[in-house]
Amino acid sequence: MKLAVDVMGGDHAPAAILGGCKQLLEAPQFQDAELVLFGDEQALRTFAAENPKFASRIRLVPTTEVIGFDESPTAAYKKKKDSSLVRAFEAVKAGEADCVVSAGSTGAILTGATLTLRRQKGVKRPAIATQMPTVTGGSVLLLDSGANTDCKPGYLQQFALMGKAYMERVAHVENPRIGLLSNGAEAEKGNMLTKEAHERLAAMDNIRFVGNVEGRDMMNGDIDVLVCDGFDGNVLLKGFEGAAKVILGFLKDAMYSSLRCKLGGLLAKPAFSIVKKKLDYKEYGGSPLLGVNGGVIKAHGSSDEKAIYNALRQGYTWVASDLIPLIGEAIASTVIED
Amino acid sequence: MKLAVDVMGGDHAPAAILGGCKQLLEAPQFQDAELVLFGDEQALRTFAAENPKFASRIRLVPTTEVIGFDESPTAAYKKKKDSSLVRAFEAVKAGEADCVVSAGSTGAILTGATLTLRRQKGVKRPAIATQMPTVTGGSVLLLDSGANTDCKPGYLQQFALMGKAYMERVAHVENPRIGLLSNGAEAEKGNMLTKEAHERLAAMDNIRFVGNVEGRDMMNGDIDVLVCDGFDGNVLLKGFEGAAKVILGFLKDAMYSSLRCKLGGLLAKPAFSIVKKKLDYKEYGGSPLLGVNGGVIKAHGSSDEKAIYNALRQGYTWVASDLIPLIGEAIASTVIED
Repeated sequence: MKLAVDVMGGDHAPAAILGGCKQLLEAPQFQDAELVLFGDEQALRTFAAENPKFASRIRLVPTTEVIGFDESPTAAYKKKKDSSLVRAFEAVKAGEADCVVSAGSTGAILTGATLTLRRQKGVKRPAIATQMPTVTGGSVLLLDSGANTDCKPGYLQQFALMGKAYMERVAHVENPRIGLLSNGAEAEKGNMLTKEAHERLAAMDNIRFVGNVEGRDMMNGDIDVLVCDGFDGNVLLKGFEGAAKVILGFLKDAMYSSLRCKLGGLLAKPAFSIVKKKLDYKEYGGSPLLGVNGGVIKAHGSSDEKAIYNALRQGYTWVASDLIPLIGEAIASTVIED
Repeated sequence: MKLAVDVMGGDHAPAAILGGCKQLLEAPQFQDAELVLFGDEQALRTFAAENPKFASRIRLVPTTEVIGFDESPTAAYKKKKDSSLVRAFEAVKAGEADCVVSAGSTGAILTGATLTLRRQKGVKRPAIATQMPTVTGGSVLLLDSGANTDCKPGYLQQFALMGKAYMERVAHVENPRIGLLSNGAEAEKGNMLTKEAHERLAAMDNIRFVGNVEGRDMMNGDIDVLVCDGFDGNVLLKGFEGAAKVILGFLKDAMYSSLRCKLGGLLAKPAFSIVKKKLDYKEYGGSPLLGVNGGVIKAHGSSDEKAIYNALRQGYTWVASDLIPLIGEAIASTVIED
């Protein structure tokens, strides 16, 4: 299988991207992975020269343009035809690779997915899906976590189908429990979108819908998939991120409040590392985009080597899971009004 | 000043409510506070008998009905005319008290505020405002944190005005910085509501609008007020709540990972207490409802004595701040289309 890597996307590109690539190539469990690298010619050739033993598993595609975070995504995607991102998407479209992995601009990645790979037949909107840890040691998939604002109820029904397929194949969860993000557990709670979506999800006989779920209960381990509008999913995700940062910050300050606490903090340092690692998005790699004709893994913009390695790993797993036909079947067999 | 206390609302009513009342009556800084207690006759009389020194500062209003959390709020409010909540609201309307304090059903409280107290002139929608701590030691006010779903841009403009008045008078912040909750810091980011709201907020000359703010940056100390739709505000708030619970849970588990960590955890226990206290909603008391003709403090449903004491304290501060005319002026002087 081949991963199309956007070597120029992200705050720490190209060094972090290439570093992550090296880690993947070195990993024994991914020996059948090949990488197609898109980016600055010099950087690519240096990488190839420094890693001669992987020569048979890498293909270099020099590009001359880069899409930046501050550019208007659609305009830049259409204009910079020789950018690392555009060429990576075109390679997947042409069947020269199976999955794009990029830490670049989310907007540009979404544009590439929609314009170049195009939505799978019947898919109303692709969704960015983010896997989070749960307190019971498993994980929960949140989608849409940012691709679509102002969703219609039918989109959420499809997010449920795509999320189900993902958790079945990738996380090996049997008959995933699907919740709907709302502002209260009671069925009557919600806004116009979620009230309508609730009715429709409850009426679907091919998903295991468990009802409304509040944001604070997302990680309880009671659900496997949480569907929502992309704006709300993004608010929830960033709320979690912010809380983690603030709480760990409060803890750090509190540790200095006395000598005893300082000592305790030092002794308990490994525990803090365990928790930081658990919460660290870098550990999870990135978020897959579901619903287009090809794999797309969006890695966090500030990804370092390890995060890129994990994003590539996710891409590998995605390809190996052969999700596209499974999603296609589910979408085709479920009649949904908009 | 008089606080109208719903003694029967909340998971731990009436005991926790009365316990919190006692704490307030005992506090030296609130000697001029009087309480009008609405609830079960027996409980009220027992309380009065046990606290004879406060006889001149409490007035008992026995009621025979209670609005439960599981009842349809509007129907229950209209039907149970002799409930502690309805009578408390009527007392404030009649000028017999200045502020309702209740840990009961949010829906019923909102109904009471809207039907009995009614919105201040020109207010499109009242908002529940929740104060959160910031990492710089101050606080930030989030509104609407749950009263209104499917908001229109004009409501958010008014939330900005009400939030500004609150932070000026209650938190003594000069020219509060007002942010708009969005899924990205860039002005173009957002859904239909926030894009329109952004334009309008930016054009207002009587607020200090600082632009879009992502959920994760709410507690940075960069803003004093964060405006949003009630559904999104609720998602953000509950996301924070959930994160706090999950992270502290992960930490607790991690502390048991080795003897060293266990010891460290014991030594650092005071630090954990400091942080738990900082994050504990009970410390903040409750959330005021802004925009109606009278004070309303909604305390968390599971409030204990301390939380009720803090909610009463908030009610006291609210009345002392004389916010209603200030909000009235701001609303009247700002022309807003829906």
